[in-house]
Amino acid sequence: MVKVAVLGATGYAGADLVRLLYHHPDVELTLLTSESFAGERFSQVHPQFKGLVDERLHSLQAEAVPEEVAVVFCALPHGKSAPVIPELLQRKLKVVDLSADFRLHQPLLYQQWYGWTHPTPGLLASSVYGLPEIYAADIKQARLVANPGCFPTGAILALAPLASERLVDWDSVIIDAKSGVSGAGRTPRPGFHFPDCTENFKAYRVGNHQHTPEIEQELARLAGEEAVRVTFTPHLVPMIRGILSTVYVSLPDRSLEELYALYEDFYRDSVFVRVRREILPETRLVRGSNYCDLALRVDQRAGRLIIISCIDNLVKGASGQAVQNMNLMLGYPQEKGLTQVPL
Amino acid sequence: MVKVAVLGATGYAGADLVRLLYHHPDVELTLLTSESFAGERFSQVHPQFKGLVDERLHSLQAEAVPEEVAVVFCALPHGKSAPVIPELLQRKLKVVDLSADFRLHQPLLYQQWYGWTHPTPGLLASSVYGLPEIYAADIKQARLVANPGCFPTGAILALAPLASERLVDWDSVIIDAKSGVSGAGRTPRPGFHFPDCTENFKAYRVGNHQHTPEIEQELARLAGEEAVRVTFTPHLVPMIRGILSTVYVSLPDRSLEELYALYEDFYRDSVFVRVRREILPETRLVRGSNYCDLALRVDQRAGRLIIISCIDNLVKGASGQAVQNMNLMLGYPQEKGLTQVPL
Amino acid sequence: MVKVAVLGATGYAGADLVRLLYHHPDVELTLLTSESFAGERFSQVHPQFKGLVDERLHSLQAEAVPEEVAVVFCALPHGKSAPVIPELLQRKLKVVDLSADFRLHQPLLYQQWYGWTHPTPGLLASSVYGLPEIYAADIKQARLVANPGCFPTGAILALAPLASERLVDWDSVIIDAKSGVSGAGRTPRPGFHFPDCTENFKAYRVGNHQHTPEIEQELARLAGEEAVRVTFTPHLVPMIRGILSTVYVSLPDRSLEELYALYEDFYRDSVFVRVRREILPETRLVRGSNYCDLALRVDQRAGRLIIISCIDNLVKGASGQAVQNMNLMLGYPQEKGLTQVPL
Amino acid sequence: MVKVAVLGATGYAGADLVRLLYHHPDVELTLLTSESFAGERFSQVHPQFKGLVDERLHSLQAEAVPEEVAVVFCALPHGKSAPVIPELLQRKLKVVDLSADFRLHQPLLYQQWYGWTHPTPGLLASSVYGLPEIYAADIKQARLVANPGCFPTGAILALAPLASERLVDWDSVIIDAKSGVSGAGRTPRPGFHFPDCTENFKAYRVGNHQHTPEIEQELARLAGEEAVRVTFTPHLVPMIRGILSTVYVSLPDRSLEELYALYEDFYRDSVFVRVRREILPETRLVRGSNYCDLALRVDQRAGRLIIISCIDNLVKGASGQAVQNMNLMLGYPQEKGLTQVPL
Repeated sequence: MVKVAVLGATGYAGADLVRLLYHHPDVELTLLTSESFAGERFSQVHPQFKGLVDERLHSLQAEAVPEEVAVVFCALPHGKSAPVIPELLQRKLKVVDLSADFRLHQPLLYQQWYGWTHPTPGLLASSVYGLPEIYAADIKQARLVANPGCFPTGAILALAPLASERLVDWDSVIIDAKSGVSGAGRTPRPGFHFPDCTENFKAYRVGNHQHTPEIEQELARLAGEEAVRVTFTPHLVPMIRGILSTVYVSLPDRSLEELYALYEDFYRDSVFVRVRREILPETRLVRGSNYCDLALRVDQRAGRLIIISCIDNLVKGASGQAVQNMNLMLGYPQEKGLTQVPL
Repeated sequence: MVKVAVLGATGYAGADLVRLLYHHPDVELTLLTSESFAGERFSQVHPQFKGLVDERLHSLQAEAVPEEVAVVFCALPHGKSAPVIPELLQRKLKVVDLSADFRLHQPLLYQQWYGWTHPTPGLLASSVYGLPEIYAADIKQARLVANPGCFPTGAILALAPLASERLVDWDSVIIDAKSGVSGAGRTPRPGFHFPDCTENFKAYRVGNHQHTPEIEQELARLAGEEAVRVTFTPHLVPMIRGILSTVYVSLPDRSLEELYALYEDFYRDSVFVRVRREILPETRLVRGSNYCDLALRVDQRAGRLIIISCIDNLVKGASGQAVQNMNLMLGYPQEKGLTQVPL
Repeated sequence: MVKVAVLGATGYAGADLVRLLYHHPDVELTLLTSESFAGERFSQVHPQFKGLVDERLHSLQAEAVPEEVAVVFCALPHGKSAPVIPELLQRKLKVVDLSADFRLHQPLLYQQWYGWTHPTPGLLASSVYGLPEIYAADIKQARLVANPGCFPTGAILALAPLASERLVDWDSVIIDAKSGVSGAGRTPRPGFHFPDCTENFKAYRVGNHQHTPEIEQELARLAGEEAVRVTFTPHLVPMIRGILSTVYVSLPDRSLEELYALYEDFYRDSVFVRVRREILPETRLVRGSNYCDLALRVDQRAGRLIIISCIDNLVKGASGQAVQNMNLMLGYPQEKGLTQVPL
Repeated sequence: MVKVAVLGATGYAGADLVRLLYHHPDVELTLLTSESFAGERFSQVHPQFKGLVDERLHSLQAEAVPEEVAVVFCALPHGKSAPVIPELLQRKLKVVDLSADFRLHQPLLYQQWYGWTHPTPGLLASSVYGLPEIYAADIKQARLVANPGCFPTGAILALAPLASERLVDWDSVIIDAKSGVSGAGRTPRPGFHFPDCTENFKAYRVGNHQHTPEIEQELARLAGEEAVRVTFTPHLVPMIRGILSTVYVSLPDRSLEELYALYEDFYRDSVFVRVRREILPETRLVRGSNYCDLALRVDQRAGRLIIISCIDNLVKGASGQAVQNMNLMLGYPQEKGLTQVPL
């Protein structure tokens, strides 16, 4: 049994992480922190855990992460991880950071898209982008893994096989993404108040969502380009969990059969990517699981390839991917503790 | 055209009232107030009204209600109406108060159930309880109408025919009520945050909801009793609008046919009560309308009568009933401006 | 009072039409037909109408449309209107057809996209496409109006100002549309069974939805092109009503301000189009109303214009637009009976 | 590894059973049957299982249950189990039957409440009612376990401690139950069509639901009464999973503290019952888990005890309870494979 700590355990991503770690056969939860609820039991904040995870929450300010911890999960809000992580690394702890703080390699992008100056830009180069389907080898060696954002996970997996084969006309890429409401976090706010949110559909942050540079950085790397530009538009679906991305790109000079073969080959060893020919992905088919379902369709008339990808934004888009990264860092099979059938 | 003012126009009940008054053929909206949004346009706060109701919101503190106003609707939070209404009455304005501040006749009940001391207990006796199906004659003469609460409206209409015939065994009455989420108001709070509220069902304030004494007061009056006691349990349904109440009472010595005849007779002139034999009421069948649908069922084995009532909590449970009261106060047919087909 | 008939009154579009016609101050419902429910009362099939529309449903096979009817609304399933309408026209009746049967001008397209041979191709040329924001003058003179499809309404209104100014790069147009479930009709089917449909999001008919040629036909006409090709992808949102379309097109050589001015100018006299600068459209802001809300956003980095349009698929996408067409055909103001505030 | 068979694997309860059995560490799925989908793969019918359970479905008519099967789960429709089970028992197989066919001990009740004549009334006496919190000892010895209905599970667990202490005034018992839509099965029908079911709340089968005699039989047995009568009213909540029961009973001569102590004592060894003092149960807090959450509240004014119980209707109300029964029959700890944290 390895001991792990979760910093920021009471947000949606943190709590879903606790759920998965509780089920993990080789893991023991040693420290759960929360600044808002320090002193309370975890199951007082998330009453579904009563009798399962009744541990007390500690303030990170007051407590040190114990020596014997193998992996620290950092599920703090964006901007709160960066000041905390350097000390953890100095203490030789392995870290999976679920925030955006170590995902981008160019410090300037934090200024531009997040509105703050990165306090430890020197560390950006040493973090590994935690998308195991692409960077498994690096993740196994990493001390700091930057767990991908939910939208980038779905979008990058949708385009990675094409990008790595240089089959993408970058001027043509549009990612029209639709997310459940848990992506907005657990703080009540007007747009997410039930009567204003149910029976409603809307777009938001059109043309300026902070996941855009993350998607572009990774796609450029896959394609061996210096930089690429994509249009990314997020929408809000009245459901709890799930992201479906509809990705448009100019039809490469390949048949649909060849394209499917390319995708199946690219993801041959990726246990959590299901390339589907027989159906179109639906968010319910991955709910509560670590799967990414993908399908391809051709619009021959307009000369476009349409790629549909589905994930559970809290699992493959956050907590499940974090556990998958931990498994790799610890030398476990990457699916350990992650075999949940979609509910 | 009569001129009306709405104080507290931006809450859910206030906004639904503006919607109905906008459609009313004989009404002109003259003053809309809001303390939180004073200075903004109504359609900035409720963007669905753009091009329809673009009037500016005023602070009640700063503005006087104009002389020529025929009826003032007071949709302020509970406890905020009581200090405001005396002055309106002194100025000879007619008032429909949507808060609870003038519904109860015994001042002590405000202490007991609402936790505050009523500032003008002397006015309680002069307010008329605004349930037009029962008090139409009084409402026509009234200067101050206390618009009933949403749960009491459904519960009282379910029991009124029985109560007025003295057919109720008061020890047996249970009102198990289920409400949509708009009843909780438009301020975001944890229990009403979409991901915690959708796909969920719960009871709340079991045994101590503040609508209990209002229900008891009115049922006692109908029955000619000094006091009656009922059990009232509210629940929260993951939907926007609607209240369904399942009301249990010992089976009176009457056949189902006789009971239906009693209800149909009692509500013969009530255009907004539909006594239904052929179906059980569903909240969708009254959505957006001022109807109260009622049905009766007998559990012969257990000796119980079960009455099901459905209203739209924002319309018959608030704004629609307020307009119905205004119509009576102004001598209009009570259905004027209220003939919306359920959506 | 003019008399109207509704053929196929019990489907979702038909019933919503009955709702609007019931409210229309100058209309009397004279004949409601239904093959499935002939003999029953309308309010037995749609119990929310009890006490409002209790008329009996007739079989169209058995009944003739009365002489004195001014307008016949044909809300029959696709393919069922074409055989019925010629006789109505011969009898000099005015017809608004809500099916797709007279929307396309090239008979071959019915073969290709709907899979049947049009029985009266000769009539296609004489029907007027019923989008009042563009063809009001023609509609006023028309005997047969083909009411637009729900997706085409939202898509065409989003692009019409650009198209008519020849500002569209037709190779770049993508219409990513999201619809509520009422668009699928009222026959229970697996994909629309509540437990499989709620908490779910999916795409369907990717690249081959039958509304594609309708959108292309009308956009080509506006642009003065022989033919245009667009990519159109529909998705299913777990809500009852509403369509939001996210439309992508290469950024024309205009500033956002100039583009907004173009749209505002184009829709200056269109009472049901609201060009919105201050907010992004949301489906709830048009729910139950005949509005189409539009907003523009520029993705400068990727060189794209993004247009968001929202309608209620049953109202502006079907019944409301049909009433708007009737108003024009009868010489009424087009908003008569259609001033509902979004609910 | 023990081998198990699931007859009727494609309904909601059957599929949820397959999900749990797939996770169970000591179980191997050997035979899955379906009459409607024989020949197809399980993951074609339930695409979320792709890559997990791809086994082919067999027709029970054509296939025999293999010798080596330890436990057969019968998830066939009501009335379809009774003809099949005798042969399984003759072959010395252990059976958990999820239908109602062997729950009631008096054959006449099948006539009265289900409308059919029981084909093997002689077997009714030998089946064990599979509520492990009460009958664990019997279940361990049983060859045929009748898995309880979903409503009875929640209702009986709510009342069992009181009933076994003879503290129930049986004339006073009302069970007002609210269920998610998955309880209605996976066949599309009008009342469960998304647009008619979402944003709606209704009661159904008032006073005549077939779970009534099952509840009464078990409560009478617990209380040592010959027969008891309760009022049971089911309602439909627009959500997928969950049942909340609000149970009313005359307040026994005990304090709330004493009553809580009684419940905690009664369920001391029941790992899946959580007696909750600090919160009221909500269906989301048990979603996807095998828990039953219980809370007590006193309405002192009206002299009533109100018990709230919550289960996931598909898990503790069907599949999870079936696995719990299998665990007992095979000598495993009852929680084996059932430790899912609520999602």
